[in-house]
Amino acid sequence: MKRIAILGSTGSIGIQTLEVAREHRNDIQIRALVAHSNIELLERQIREFMPRIVCVYDDKKAKLLKENIKDLSVRVETGMEGIIACATEESTDTVVAALVGMIGILPTIEAIKAGKNIALANKETLVTAGHIIMPLSREKNIELLPVDSEHSAIFQSLHGEDKNNIYRILLTASGGPFRGLKGQVLETMTASDALKHPNWRMGPKITIDSATLVNKALEVMEAVWLFGLPIEQIQVLIHPQSIIHSMVEYVDGSIIAQLGLPDMRLPIQYALFYPDRKDMRLGERVDFVKLKELTFEEPDMDTFYGLKLGLRAGKLGGSMPTVYNAANEWAVARFLEGKIGFLDIPRLIEEAMDNHILINAPTLNQILNTEQETYDFIKGIVKFGK
Amino acid sequence: MKRIAILGSTGSIGIQTLEVAREHRNDIQIRALVAHSNIELLERQIREFMPRIVCVYDDKKAKLLKENIKDLSVRVETGMEGIIACATEESTDTVVAALVGMIGILPTIEAIKAGKNIALANKETLVTAGHIIMPLSREKNIELLPVDSEHSAIFQSLHGEDKNNIYRILLTASGGPFRGLKGQVLETMTASDALKHPNWRMGPKITIDSATLVNKALEVMEAVWLFGLPIEQIQVLIHPQSIIHSMVEYVDGSIIAQLGLPDMRLPIQYALFYPDRKDMRLGERVDFVKLKELTFEEPDMDTFYGLKLGLRAGKLGGSMPTVYNAANEWAVARFLEGKIGFLDIPRLIEEAMDNHILINAPTLNQILNTEQETYDFIKGIVKFGK
Repeated sequence: MKRIAILGSTGSIGIQTLEVAREHRNDIQIRALVAHSNIELLERQIREFMPRIVCVYDDKKAKLLKENIKDLSVRVETGMEGIIACATEESTDTVVAALVGMIGILPTIEAIKAGKNIALANKETLVTAGHIIMPLSREKNIELLPVDSEHSAIFQSLHGEDKNNIYRILLTASGGPFRGLKGQVLETMTASDALKHPNWRMGPKITIDSATLVNKALEVMEAVWLFGLPIEQIQVLIHPQSIIHSMVEYVDGSIIAQLGLPDMRLPIQYALFYPDRKDMRLGERVDFVKLKELTFEEPDMDTFYGLKLGLRAGKLGGSMPTVYNAANEWAVARFLEGKIGFLDIPRLIEEAMDNHILINAPTLNQILNTEQETYDFIKGIVKFGK
Repeated sequence: MKRIAILGSTGSIGIQTLEVAREHRNDIQIRALVAHSNIELLERQIREFMPRIVCVYDDKKAKLLKENIKDLSVRVETGMEGIIACATEESTDTVVAALVGMIGILPTIEAIKAGKNIALANKETLVTAGHIIMPLSREKNIELLPVDSEHSAIFQSLHGEDKNNIYRILLTASGGPFRGLKGQVLETMTASDALKHPNWRMGPKITIDSATLVNKALEVMEAVWLFGLPIEQIQVLIHPQSIIHSMVEYVDGSIIAQLGLPDMRLPIQYALFYPDRKDMRLGERVDFVKLKELTFEEPDMDTFYGLKLGLRAGKLGGSMPTVYNAANEWAVARFLEGKIGFLDIPRLIEEAMDNHILINAPTLNQILNTEQETYDFIKGIVKFGK
């Protein structure tokens, strides 16, 4: 029996984690749920899975929820303290860290300190604070299990192997909805164009990041920390069908790959049951005859130069990935609002990176300050004329 | 330091094993070499690798070799006794079983009894005597390491995994030089057409078996024994580029695959150093961007019905795989001599199978008798008119 807490239960990963839990009722118990403010969905989740404790980050919504579920004996908390209470709930084995943004870092650190295994779906945690998280995970001897199809694929392809024998990682990317397009056309693309991802069902922020390939740069930075490799040993490979989720090439020329349908429930389920595998009760299986072909291309880093900037930020390290991530987060939000163009996203990231003075091995406070400074800097340079 | 014996050192696998040994001189010592009759090549191998003992199966050639290398202190033996002496040489850890044909079975059994790990390249061993070899391997607690790109791929894709979680094996096949052709055209194909394999450097017998897809049926039968699965859980998938060497699909829908260039030295090296991996000092690495695509098709079992017959033989089990293999061996030899047509190969196999009365769990003697009876039967029905 796996007892889990989900930080971010009303988001895309949280919802799909609960789908997996629903199919494996005899093997998974939900002990804690955290949501930002969607108390209608959270209440349905509570009534179905009966956790011991929940947290609604928004204080007013928390009070409302408390009123709405007063017939149940579920503890309702709020704010960062409430999130941490859920992340460290005594009986929990594994914390699914699926909050969006920097807010996910501190609860994850607290969960690790409390000895919980982490099913990590929050990108910012390793991108900005990998140098804090990784030594802590080793010290506490917990499992840090990736919940991302690419990192799960790499993790699975490394299973039973000696990491010293890695030659390189081939991190695949669908290329997103704008693959093959060039600058002039890209300039005209809107959020609704970018949200039409060809393969994956994901939240809006990550879908835009997939269109800019910023998502792939963040994944490379995560892989550096998760697998302890220099960034040069990680190669991004465009694979539009999203069937090969990533590969590990070994020194002997042998390549181990993990394949599957593009369905986030597979890496979620793998992380929850690791090292065991359980029946897939959802969705279909890969049919290679029907697929006919798997194709590969080099990423077009000149057009999608958010990727190139990300690799630069990753190589610089320190506080630069935080700047990259914060500038991107801010720019994507404005793009989703229709306030800036698609190519403004990498432009703003580049300006923010150029403006930043690098801090090596920043503390969590320095990371959070760097994020705020990045927001302030971009706000200062962007004039909304449209 | 790995100390190895090579049974069949002058054949394709033997030569490539010695190429691997040459590149890893500090890690591999050659202790014994066995050849059928090619004493010119064997002598060069002896002078380069200095084994303790060699065997030339042909008695006259053995005497000649003895004379030719009397300046060396290498023991020269002959016949089956000589092969077994090499297979059980005291200081050897791993025996590369690469003899062609049924002659390979007994020395392999003796090597297992002597506690040697087996790097298995001889197909007949498991196809005809899997029910003898597998329990013996378990009893002696030796490693049975496949030296075949497909089985090595499956073996690697299973590394660290629980076999109970296998959903099925996807055994890939290039489809051979005649992929896509139909009966009427196939009827006219000669040995020299069939020997133009698109991807692999192999001996003539296996290259013809690759053209008929008989090779794939033999591999399915081997996989049944090696991985302990019912034949229905092994699916043949045509993949013309021979880059994905095979895949294992698990119950959760996840597929682990092993990829690499079509180069037998990779599975040979993996078997010799298992579970470690060593630098590949030979050949190139896979370049997915250059490859552009990997494609897949269903095997055409009506045209290449040697495959269908093989799956039937495998399902029947007992002595039937021996009949299938012997009939094929005889037919391929005649096809290589230009005495029968390409489609006569499956026709003769089918006749031999239809004529045979199944023996369940045959002894080694019954297997060898079945082989001889199959030869005799076919000789009786084939009239060479051309």
